[in-house]
Amino acid sequence: MSNRTPAAGQTLAAARPARRGRPGNDVESVLAAAVRLFNDGGYDYTSMVDIAESLRITKSSLYHHVSSKEQLLQMAMDRALDGLFEALSAADRAAGHATALQRLECLVRSSVLVLADRMEFVTLLLRVRGNTAVEQQALRRRREFDARVTALVKQAQAEGGVRPDVDAATAARLLFGMVNSLTEWYRPRRGGATHLADTVTALAFDGLRQR
Amino acid sequence: MSNRTPAAGQTLAAARPARRGRPGNDVESVLAAAVRLFNDGGYDYTSMVDIAESLRITKSSLYHHVSSKEQLLQMAMDRALDGLFEALSAADRAAGHATALQRLECLVRSSVLVLADRMEFVTLLLRVRGNTAVEQQALRRRREFDARVTALVKQAQAEGGVRPDVDAATAARLLFGMVNSLTEWYRPRRGGATHLADTVTALAFDGLRQR
Repeated sequence: MSNRTPAAGQTLAAARPARRGRPGNDVESVLAAAVRLFNDGGYDYTSMVDIAESLRITKSSLYHHVSSKEQLLQMAMDRALDGLFEALSAADRAAGHATALQRLECLVRSSVLVLADRMEFVTLLLRVRGNTAVEQQALRRRREFDARVTALVKQAQAEGGVRPDVDAATAARLLFGMVNSLTEWYRPRRGGATHLADTVTALAFDGLRQR
Repeated sequence: MSNRTPAAGQTLAAARPARRGRPGNDVESVLAAAVRLFNDGGYDYTSMVDIAESLRITKSSLYHHVSSKEQLLQMAMDRALDGLFEALSAADRAAGHATALQRLECLVRSSVLVLADRMEFVTLLLRVRGNTAVEQQALRRRREFDARVTALVKQAQAEGGVRPDVDAATAARLLFGMVNSLTEWYRPRRGGATHLADTVTALAFDGLRQR
Protein backbone atom coordinates (compact mmCIF):
# COMPACT_ATOMS: atom_id res chain seq x y z
CA MET A 1 0.00 0.00 0.00
CA SER A 2 2.75 2.47 0.96
CA ASN A 3 4.07 2.81 -2.62
CA ARG A 4 0.56 3.82 -3.79
CA THR A 5 0.12 6.63 -1.30
CA PRO A 6 2.00 9.38 -3.24
CA ALA A 7 0.07 8.55 -6.40
CA ALA A 8 -3.21 8.71 -4.52
CA GLY A 9 -2.09 12.02 -3.06
CA GLN A 10 -1.26 13.34 -6.54
CA THR A 11 -4.62 12.25 -7.83
CA LEU A 12 -6.31 14.11 -5.02
CA ALA A 13 -4.23 17.22 -5.71
CA ALA A 14 -5.03 17.01 -9.43
CA ALA A 15 -8.74 16.62 -8.75
CA ARG A 16 -8.72 19.60 -6.42
CA PRO A 17 -6.14 21.99 -7.95
CA ALA A 18 -8.10 25.07 -6.95
CA ARG A 19 -7.77 24.37 -3.25
CA ARG A 20 -4.08 23.54 -3.12
CA GLY A 21 -1.82 26.54 -2.71
CA ARG A 22 -3.41 28.61 -5.47
CA PRO A 23 -5.50 31.22 -3.68
CA GLY A 24 -6.29 33.05 -6.95
CA ASN A 25 -7.95 30.00 -8.40
CA ASP A 26 -9.66 29.34 -5.12
CA VAL A 27 -11.54 32.61 -5.19
CA GLU A 28 -12.66 31.79 -8.72
CA SER A 29 -14.12 28.44 -7.71
CA VAL A 30 -15.76 29.94 -4.61
CA LEU A 31 -17.29 32.68 -6.75
CA ALA A 32 -18.50 30.20 -9.38
CA ALA A 33 -20.10 27.98 -6.74
CA ALA A 34 -21.72 30.95 -4.99
CA VAL A 35 -23.17 32.39 -8.20
CA ARG A 36 -24.58 28.96 -9.15
CA LEU A 37 -26.36 28.79 -5.77
CA PHE A 38 -27.55 32.42 -5.96
CA ASN A 39 -29.04 31.74 -9.41
CA ASP A 40 -30.65 28.45 -8.40
CA GLY A 41 -32.06 29.32 -5.01
CA GLY A 42 -31.95 33.12 -4.79
CA TYR A 43 -29.30 35.34 -3.19
CA ASP A 44 -31.40 36.07 -0.10
CA TYR A 45 -31.95 32.38 0.59
CA THR A 46 -28.35 31.24 0.13
CA SER A 47 -26.06 31.24 3.18
CA MET A 48 -22.29 31.07 3.51
CA VAL A 49 -22.86 27.60 5.02
CA ASP A 50 -24.65 26.53 1.80
CA ILE A 51 -21.70 27.82 -0.27
CA ALA A 52 -19.14 26.04 1.95
CA GLU A 53 -21.15 22.80 1.78
CA SER A 54 -21.42 22.93 -2.01
CA LEU A 55 -17.62 23.25 -2.18
CA ARG A 56 -17.13 20.57 0.50
CA ILE A 57 -15.02 22.94 2.58
CA THR A 58 -15.53 24.27 6.10
CA LYS A 59 -17.11 27.64 6.74
CA SER A 60 -13.79 28.91 8.15
CA SER A 61 -11.98 27.79 4.97
CA LEU A 62 -14.55 29.76 3.00
CA TYR A 63 -13.90 32.89 5.08
CA HIS A 64 -10.20 32.45 4.32
CA HIS A 65 -11.06 33.35 0.70
CA VAL A 66 -13.89 35.86 1.05
CA SER A 67 -15.07 38.07 3.85
CA SER A 68 -18.82 37.91 3.26
CA LYS A 69 -21.70 36.85 1.01
CA GLU A 70 -22.01 40.52 -0.01
CA GLN A 71 -18.42 40.46 -1.28
CA LEU A 72 -19.26 37.49 -3.52
CA LEU A 73 -22.32 39.31 -4.86
CA GLN A 74 -20.21 42.44 -5.45
CA MET A 75 -17.63 40.42 -7.39
CA ALA A 76 -20.35 38.77 -9.50
CA MET A 77 -22.01 42.11 -10.28
CA ASP A 78 -18.63 43.60 -11.25
CA ARG A 79 -17.87 40.70 -13.61
CA ALA A 80 -21.17 41.25 -15.42
CA LEU A 81 -21.22 45.05 -15.42
CA ASP A 82 -17.52 45.61 -16.13
CA GLY A 83 -17.90 43.44 -19.25
CA LEU A 84 -20.87 45.46 -20.49
CA PHE A 85 -19.23 48.82 -19.70
CA GLU A 86 -16.04 47.75 -21.48
CA ALA A 87 -18.19 47.05 -24.57
CA LEU A 88 -19.68 50.52 -24.20
CA SER A 89 -16.24 52.15 -23.83
CA ALA A 90 -14.97 50.33 -26.92
CA ALA A 91 -17.95 51.68 -28.86
CA ASP A 92 -17.26 55.20 -27.54
CA ARG A 93 -13.58 55.01 -28.52
CA ALA A 94 -14.65 54.34 -32.12
CA ALA A 95 -16.52 57.67 -32.21
CA GLY A 96 -13.85 59.36 -34.36
CA HIS A 97 -14.13 56.96 -37.28
CA ALA A 98 -17.47 55.15 -36.94
CA THR A 99 -21.06 56.38 -37.15
CA ALA A 100 -23.34 56.10 -34.12
CA LEU A 101 -25.22 53.31 -35.94
CA GLN A 102 -22.00 51.36 -36.47
CA ARG A 103 -21.06 51.84 -32.82
CA LEU A 104 -24.51 50.68 -31.72
CA GLU A 105 -24.20 47.57 -33.90
CA CYS A 106 -20.76 46.93 -32.44
CA LEU A 107 -22.14 47.34 -28.91
CA VAL A 108 -24.96 44.85 -29.51
CA ARG A 109 -22.53 42.33 -30.99
CA SER A 110 -20.03 42.76 -28.12
CA SER A 111 -22.77 42.53 -25.51
CA VAL A 112 -23.89 39.16 -26.89
CA LEU A 113 -20.29 37.94 -26.58
CA VAL A 114 -20.06 39.25 -23.00
CA LEU A 115 -23.30 37.50 -22.09
CA ALA A 116 -22.23 34.23 -23.68
CA ASP A 117 -18.87 34.42 -21.88
CA ARG A 118 -20.20 35.55 -18.47
CA MET A 119 -23.64 33.94 -18.59
CA GLU A 120 -23.93 33.06 -14.89
CA PHE A 121 -22.85 36.53 -13.73
CA VAL A 122 -25.19 38.35 -16.11
CA THR A 123 -28.06 35.99 -15.20
CA LEU A 124 -27.58 36.97 -11.55
CA LEU A 125 -27.33 40.66 -12.46
CA LEU A 126 -30.66 40.49 -14.27
CA ARG A 127 -32.31 38.90 -11.22
CA VAL A 128 -31.22 41.25 -8.45
CA ARG A 129 -33.97 43.47 -7.16
CA GLY A 130 -32.16 45.97 -4.97
CA ASN A 131 -32.64 44.61 -1.45
CA THR A 132 -29.06 45.35 -0.39
CA ALA A 133 -26.56 48.18 -0.96
CA VAL A 134 -24.62 46.00 -3.42
CA GLU A 135 -27.79 45.27 -5.41
CA GLN A 136 -28.81 48.92 -5.37
CA GLN A 137 -25.44 49.92 -6.76
CA ALA A 138 -25.73 47.25 -9.46
CA LEU A 139 -29.16 48.61 -10.41
CA ARG A 140 -27.70 52.12 -10.57
CA ARG A 141 -24.99 50.91 -12.97
CA ARG A 142 -27.61 49.08 -15.07
CA ARG A 143 -29.63 52.31 -15.32
CA GLU A 144 -26.47 54.21 -16.34
CA PHE A 145 -25.81 51.57 -19.01
CA ASP A 146 -29.39 51.88 -20.32
CA ALA A 147 -29.09 55.69 -20.38
CA ARG A 148 -25.87 55.52 -22.40
CA VAL A 149 -27.41 53.06 -24.88
CA THR A 150 -30.42 55.36 -25.22
CA ALA A 151 -28.08 58.31 -25.88
CA LEU A 152 -26.32 56.30 -28.59
CA VAL A 153 -29.67 55.40 -30.23
CA LYS A 154 -30.61 59.10 -30.16
CA GLN A 155 -27.32 60.08 -31.75
CA ALA A 156 -27.81 57.44 -34.45
CA GLN A 157 -31.28 58.85 -35.10
CA ALA A 158 -29.86 62.38 -35.36
CA GLU A 159 -27.30 61.12 -37.89
CA GLY A 160 -30.06 59.42 -39.90
CA GLY A 161 -28.75 55.90 -39.25
CA VAL A 162 -31.63 54.71 -37.05
CA ARG A 163 -35.32 55.14 -37.90
CA PRO A 164 -36.74 58.26 -36.27
CA ASP A 165 -40.26 56.86 -35.65
CA VAL A 166 -39.21 54.82 -32.59
CA ASP A 167 -38.68 56.21 -29.10
CA ALA A 168 -34.95 55.89 -28.32
CA ALA A 169 -35.41 54.63 -24.74
CA THR A 170 -37.95 52.01 -25.88
CA ALA A 171 -35.63 50.91 -28.69
CA ALA A 172 -32.73 50.57 -26.24
CA ARG A 173 -34.85 48.47 -23.85
CA LEU A 174 -36.13 46.21 -26.65
CA LEU A 175 -32.62 45.75 -28.07
CA PHE A 176 -31.28 44.68 -24.71
CA GLY A 177 -34.44 42.73 -23.94
CA MET A 178 -33.52 40.58 -26.93
CA VAL A 179 -29.83 40.40 -25.94
CA ASN A 180 -30.57 39.63 -22.28
CA SER A 181 -33.02 36.85 -23.21
CA LEU A 182 -29.93 34.76 -24.02
CA THR A 183 -29.53 34.10 -20.31
CA GLU A 184 -32.85 32.21 -20.46
CA TRP A 185 -32.10 29.84 -23.32
CA TYR A 186 -28.53 30.01 -24.67
CA ARG A 187 -26.29 27.07 -23.86
CA PRO A 188 -22.63 27.85 -24.68
CA ARG A 189 -20.95 25.68 -27.27
CA ARG A 190 -17.71 26.11 -29.16
CA GLY A 191 -17.89 28.85 -31.78
CA GLY A 192 -21.60 29.33 -31.14
CA ALA A 193 -21.34 32.77 -29.57
CA THR A 194 -19.91 34.55 -32.63
CA HIS A 195 -22.61 33.12 -34.89
CA LEU A 196 -25.28 34.05 -32.35
CA ALA A 197 -23.88 37.60 -32.10
CA ASP A 198 -24.23 37.89 -35.90
CA THR A 199 -27.84 36.64 -35.74
CA VAL A 200 -28.85 39.01 -32.95
CA THR A 201 -27.22 41.98 -34.70
CA ALA A 202 -28.86 41.09 -38.03
CA LEU A 203 -32.32 40.80 -36.47
CA ALA A 204 -31.93 43.93 -34.34
CA PHE A 205 -30.91 46.19 -37.22
CA ASP A 206 -32.54 44.59 -40.28
CA GLY A 207 -35.44 42.61 -38.83
CA LEU A 208 -36.90 39.24 -39.76
CA ARG A 209 -38.53 40.26 -43.03
CA GLN A 210 -36.99 38.95 -46.24
CA ARG A 211 -36.05 41.75 -48.67
CA MET B 1 -77.75 57.46 14.05
CA SER B 2 -80.18 54.78 12.93
CA ASN B 3 -81.01 56.55 9.66
CA ARG B 4 -77.31 56.73 8.79
CA THR B 5 -76.62 53.03 9.29
CA PRO B 6 -77.76 51.85 5.84
CA ALA B 7 -75.68 54.52 4.15
CA ALA B 8 -72.63 53.59 6.22
CA GLY B 9 -73.30 49.95 5.38
CA GLN B 10 -73.49 50.83 1.67
CA THR B 11 -70.24 52.75 1.83
CA LEU B 12 -68.55 49.81 3.48
CA ALA B 13 -69.97 47.46 0.85
CA ALA B 14 -68.83 49.78 -1.94
CA ALA B 15 -65.33 50.03 -0.48
CA ARG B 16 -65.05 46.27 -0.14
CA PRO B 17 -67.09 44.91 -3.05
CA ALA B 18 -64.83 41.93 -3.50
CA ARG B 19 -65.55 40.48 -0.07
CA ARG B 20 -69.30 41.00 0.04
CA GLY B 21 -71.35 38.20 -1.50
CA ARG B 22 -69.45 38.14 -4.79
CA PRO B 23 -67.30 35.04 -4.64
CA GLY B 24 -66.17 35.50 -8.26
CA ASN B 25 -64.61 38.85 -7.44
CA ASP B 26 -63.15 37.45 -4.25
CA VAL B 27 -61.16 34.83 -6.08
CA GLU B 28 -59.84 37.58 -8.36
CA SER B 29 -58.53 39.65 -5.47
CA VAL B 30 -57.05 36.59 -3.76
CA LEU B 31 -55.33 35.63 -7.01
CA ALA B 32 -54.02 39.16 -7.58
CA ALA B 33 -52.62 39.35 -4.03
CA ALA B 34 -51.04 35.90 -4.30
CA VAL B 35 -49.37 36.63 -7.65
CA ARG B 36 -47.98 39.90 -6.31
CA LEU B 37 -46.40 38.03 -3.38
CA PHE B 38 -45.14 35.21 -5.61
CA ASN B 39 -43.46 37.77 -7.88
CA ASP B 40 -41.99 39.79 -5.02
CA GLY B 41 -40.76 37.04 -2.73
CA GLY B 42 -40.79 33.86 -4.81
CA TYR B 43 -43.49 31.18 -5.01
CA ASP B 44 -41.57 28.72 -2.83
CA TYR B 45 -41.12 31.26 -0.06
CA THR B 46 -44.72 32.52 0.04
CA SER B 47 -47.18 30.74 2.34
CA MET B 48 -50.97 30.75 2.46
CA VAL B 49 -50.57 32.64 5.76
CA ASP B 50 -48.63 35.38 3.93
CA ILE B 51 -51.42 35.62 1.34
CA ALA B 52 -54.14 35.77 4.01
CA GLU B 53 -52.21 38.46 5.92
CA SER B 54 -51.70 40.60 2.82
CA LEU B 55 -55.49 40.51 2.25
CA ARG B 56 -56.19 41.05 5.97
CA ILE B 57 -58.37 37.97 6.11
CA THR B 58 -58.04 34.80 8.19
CA LYS B 59 -56.42 31.69 6.79
CA SER B 60 -59.79 29.88 6.96
CA SER B 61 -61.44 32.70 4.96
CA LEU B 62 -58.70 32.24 2.37
CA TYR B 63 -59.41 28.49 2.15
CA HIS B 64 -63.06 29.37 1.58
CA HIS B 65 -61.96 30.76 -1.81
CA VAL B 66 -59.11 28.50 -2.86
CA SER B 67 -58.05 25.03 -1.82
CA SER B 68 -54.26 25.46 -1.99
CA LYS B 69 -51.29 27.59 -2.99
CA GLU B 70 -50.84 25.24 -5.98
CA GLN B 71 -54.35 26.10 -7.17
CA LEU B 72 -53.44 29.80 -7.16
CA LEU B 73 -50.28 29.09 -9.12
CA GLN B 74 -52.27 26.97 -11.58
CA MET B 75 -54.78 29.79 -12.09
CA ALA B 76 -51.98 32.31 -12.64
CA MET B 77 -50.19 30.06 -15.17
CA ASP B 78 -53.48 29.51 -17.02
CA ARG B 79 -54.16 33.25 -17.23
CA ALA B 80 -50.77 33.82 -18.81
CA LEU B 81 -50.64 30.77 -21.06
CA ASP B 82 -54.28 30.81 -22.18
CA GLY B 83 -53.76 34.39 -23.37
CA LEU B 84 -50.69 33.46 -25.39
CA PHE B 85 -52.30 30.32 -26.85
CA GLU B 86 -55.41 32.31 -27.83
CA ALA B 87 -53.11 34.66 -29.76
CA LEU B 88 -51.56 31.62 -31.45
CA SER B 89 -54.98 30.15 -32.32
CA ALA B 90 -56.12 33.47 -33.78
CA ALA B 91 -53.00 33.50 -35.97
CA ASP B 92 -53.70 29.89 -37.05
CA ARG B 93 -57.31 30.69 -37.93
CA ALA B 94 -56.06 33.35 -40.37
CA ALA B 95 -54.13 30.68 -42.31
CA GLY B 96 -56.64 30.66 -45.19
CA HIS B 97 -56.25 34.32 -46.10
CA ALA B 98 -52.96 35.51 -44.55
CA THR B 99 -49.33 34.57 -45.23
CA ALA B 100 -47.25 32.97 -42.50
CA LEU B 101 -45.32 36.26 -42.22
CA GLN B 102 -48.55 38.19 -41.66
CA ARG B 103 -49.67 35.65 -39.06
CA LEU B 104 -46.33 35.88 -37.30
CA GLU B 105 -46.57 39.68 -37.22
CA CYS B 106 -50.10 39.37 -35.86
CA LEU B 107 -48.90 36.93 -33.19
CA VAL B 108 -46.11 39.24 -32.03
CA ARG B 109 -48.50 42.20 -31.85
CA SER B 110 -51.15 40.20 -29.95
CA SER B 111 -48.55 38.78 -27.57
CA VAL B 112 -47.44 42.29 -26.60
CA LEU B 113 -51.07 43.16 -25.84
CA VAL B 114 -51.49 39.96 -23.77
CA LEU B 115 -48.32 40.79 -21.81
CA ALA B 116 -49.37 44.37 -21.21
CA ASP B 117 -52.82 43.21 -20.06
CA ARG B 118 -51.68 40.24 -17.93
CA MET B 119 -48.26 41.54 -16.88
CA GLU B 120 -48.19 40.05 -13.35
CA PHE B 121 -49.28 36.59 -14.56
CA VAL B 122 -46.76 36.50 -17.41
CA THR B 123 -44.01 37.80 -15.11
CA LEU B 124 -44.67 34.85 -12.80
CA LEU B 125 -44.81 32.43 -15.74
CA LEU B 126 -41.37 33.59 -16.88
CA ARG B 127 -39.93 33.03 -13.40
CA VAL B 128 -41.14 29.51 -12.63
CA ARG B 129 -38.41 26.92 -12.75
CA GLY B 130 -40.29 23.62 -12.60
CA ASN B 131 -40.04 22.63 -8.95
CA THR B 132 -43.67 21.45 -8.73
CA ALA B 133 -46.06 19.57 -11.02
CA VAL B 134 -47.91 22.82 -11.80
CA GLU B 135 -44.65 24.54 -12.78
CA GLN B 136 -43.56 21.58 -14.87
CA GLN B 137 -46.82 21.64 -16.76
CA ALA B 138 -46.43 25.40 -17.33
CA LEU B 139 -42.93 24.80 -18.69
CA ARG B 140 -44.30 22.10 -21.02
CA ARG B 141 -46.90 24.54 -22.35
CA ARG B 142 -44.18 27.20 -22.80
CA ARG B 143 -42.11 24.73 -24.81
CA GLU B 144 -45.16 23.87 -26.93
CA PHE B 145 -45.73 27.59 -27.55
CA ASP B 146 -42.08 28.04 -28.58
CA ALA B 147 -42.28 25.03 -30.90
CA ARG B 148 -45.39 26.42 -32.60
CA VAL B 149 -43.77 29.85 -33.05
CA THR B 150 -40.69 28.14 -34.52
CA ALA B 151 -42.94 26.20 -36.94
CA LEU B 152 -44.58 29.46 -38.01
CA VAL B 153 -41.17 31.10 -38.60
CA LYS B 154 -40.14 28.07 -40.71
CA GLN B 155 -43.32 28.28 -42.75
CA ALA B 156 -42.74 32.00 -43.31
CA GLN B 157 -39.20 31.19 -44.47
CA ALA B 158 -40.54 28.52 -46.86
CA GLU B 159 -42.98 31.09 -48.29
CA GLY B 160 -40.15 33.62 -48.74
CA GLY B 161 -41.57 36.08 -46.19
CA VAL B 162 -38.84 35.69 -43.55
CA ARG B 163 -35.10 35.78 -44.28
CA PRO B 164 -33.71 32.26 -44.73
CA ASP B 165 -30.27 32.97 -43.20
CA VAL B 166 -31.52 32.81 -39.60
CA ASP B 167 -32.22 29.61 -37.66
CA ALA B 168 -35.99 29.48 -37.06
CA ALA B 169 -35.77 28.35 -33.42
CA THR B 170 -33.22 31.09 -32.63
CA ALA B 171 -35.39 33.69 -34.37
CA ALA B 172 -38.44 32.55 -32.36
CA ARG B 173 -36.50 32.78 -29.09
CA LEU B 174 -35.11 36.25 -29.90
CA LEU B 175 -38.53 37.53 -30.99
CA PHE B 176 -40.09 36.43 -27.72
CA GLY B 177 -37.02 37.47 -25.76
CA MET B 178 -37.79 40.99 -26.94
CA VAL B 179 -41.53 40.62 -26.24
CA ASN B 180 -41.02 39.04 -22.80
CA SER B 181 -38.58 41.78 -21.76
CA LEU B 182 -41.65 43.99 -21.35
CA THR B 183 -42.27 42.35 -18.00
CA GLU B 184 -38.99 43.89 -16.81
CA TRP B 185 -39.63 47.49 -17.74
CA TYR B 186 -43.10 48.23 -19.12
CA ARG B 187 -45.45 50.16 -16.85
CA PRO B 188 -49.02 50.10 -18.19
CA ARG B 189 -50.62 53.40 -19.07
CA ARG B 190 -53.74 54.23 -21.02
CA GLY B 191 -53.35 53.58 -24.74
CA GLY B 192 -49.68 52.76 -24.29
CA ALA B 193 -49.96 49.06 -25.10
CA THR B 194 -51.16 49.47 -28.71
CA HIS B 195 -48.37 51.90 -29.51
CA LEU B 196 -45.84 49.61 -27.87
CA ALA B 197 -47.19 46.64 -29.86
CA ASP B 198 -46.61 48.67 -33.05
CA THR B 199 -43.04 49.50 -31.99
CA VAL B 200 -42.14 45.91 -31.09
CA THR B 201 -43.61 44.61 -34.36
CA ALA B 202 -41.81 47.27 -36.40
CA LEU B 203 -38.45 46.51 -34.78
CA ALA B 204 -38.90 42.73 -34.96
CA PHE B 205 -39.70 42.67 -38.67
CA ASP B 206 -37.93 45.72 -40.07
CA GLY B 207 -35.16 46.40 -37.57
CA LEU B 208 -33.72 49.63 -36.23
CA ARG B 209 -31.88 50.72 -39.37
CA GLN B 210 -33.26 53.71 -41.26
CA ARG B 211 -34.01 52.92 -44.95
